[in-house]
Amino acid sequence: MTAPLHFYFDFISPYGFFASQRIEALAARHGREVHWHAMLLGVSVLKVMGLKPLMDTPLKGDYTGRDVLRTARETGISLGRQPRDPVMNPLPSARAFAWVRKHHPEQAAAMAHAIYGAYWGEGRDLSTPESLVGLNLPGGLAGETLAQAAAGNEAATLLRADVDEALSAGVFGSPTVLVDGEMFWGFDKLDQLDRWLVRGGW
Amino acid sequence: MTAPLHFYFDFISPYGFFASQRIEALAARHGREVHWHAMLLGVSVLKVMGLKPLMDTPLKGDYTGRDVLRTARETGISLGRQPRDPVMNPLPSARAFAWVRKHHPEQAAAMAHAIYGAYWGEGRDLSTPESLVGLNLPGGLAGETLAQAAAGNEAATLLRADVDEALSAGVFGSPTVLVDGEMFWGFDKLDQLDRWLVRGGW
Repeated sequence: MTAPLHFYFDFISPYGFFASQRIEALAARHGREVHWHAMLLGVSVLKVMGLKPLMDTPLKGDYTGRDVLRTARETGISLGRQPRDPVMNPLPSARAFAWVRKHHPEQAAAMAHAIYGAYWGEGRDLSTPESLVGLNLPGGLAGETLAQAAAGNEAATLLRADVDEALSAGVFGSPTVLVDGEMFWGFDKLDQLDRWLVRGGW
Repeated sequence: MTAPLHFYFDFISPYGFFASQRIEALAARHGREVHWHAMLLGVSVLKVMGLKPLMDTPLKGDYTGRDVLRTARETGISLGRQPRDPVMNPLPSARAFAWVRKHHPEQAAAMAHAIYGAYWGEGRDLSTPESLVGLNLPGGLAGETLAQAAAGNEAATLLRADVDEALSAGVFGSPTVLVDGEMFWGFDKLDQLDRWLVRGGW
């Protein structure tokens, strides 16, 4: 049995959303599973790396705004919000995801898709625990339970541990894939990851 | 006649070196010419964007070091220096290039290859105007003339204008390709550029 692909993402990241639509098919082509891990760009980029938010960076912010839109067009993945729209507080979603990953691990992928689909696909606001109630949730999960979990201490602790684990592994951006000790950062990097999995390294 | 690809690069950038080995074949496949433009990451990244040098950025520096080596292995482009080796002062090379681009425009591509090949391919030190004397120069260019030009005011003025022009166009990273009003940043982005040129946009 080959090792899984570890897929790291932040829900506020449009490139993470694009990659979330591709990663399972990519993994399946190589007989791999996907393990989903929430991370927080607000911790890695702002605190650890000492940089500023991507969209607030001169020149790069403008470029990124255009690149997100053309990448959506090329991939046929439709966006319900613009790259320059106000960014949600990612904590309720990420905490809810960390809680589901712990207590319903078989639903982690579906949960990630539900959040990404609502936020980037439909442009819904998910800035509060209550806003998660209306999500199109995978079977067995109740919206009220999820909202309650997202507001609780356990989910906050779980997410903190996940974020620490991502940083310890060297993950700084979204999306990032870790497999067999090798790291691939960025949606544009999935093609190289694909070639790497074919050859088993260079 | 279709418009050329405008290829922007900094000689200190390994990804610029990788792209310099690919850009002409890519352009030729689409019946395009390449116009070569030196830029300075020290101006765009440090001064305009307010970031720190890539290799000095926590997490990202380590990732980049590994990514450069595996990209070299995958592409078969051999490197004469390590990503973590001390970075040269890019001004003499970039000024010499700007001078050649002005006075011997037909030699600009060959000049870029000569500098990139010496610095990244052979690992030679090009930190001073005198170090340019030993370059394997394109026909018609004498090493002494070049070294003298690189040390002079005209080359400095020409480079400053080129760097300003790049910034005005929104260029912030190396490599960047501008074509038909669309910008593509990064070596990993050349595949998307290739697809874009096939389709003429999305």
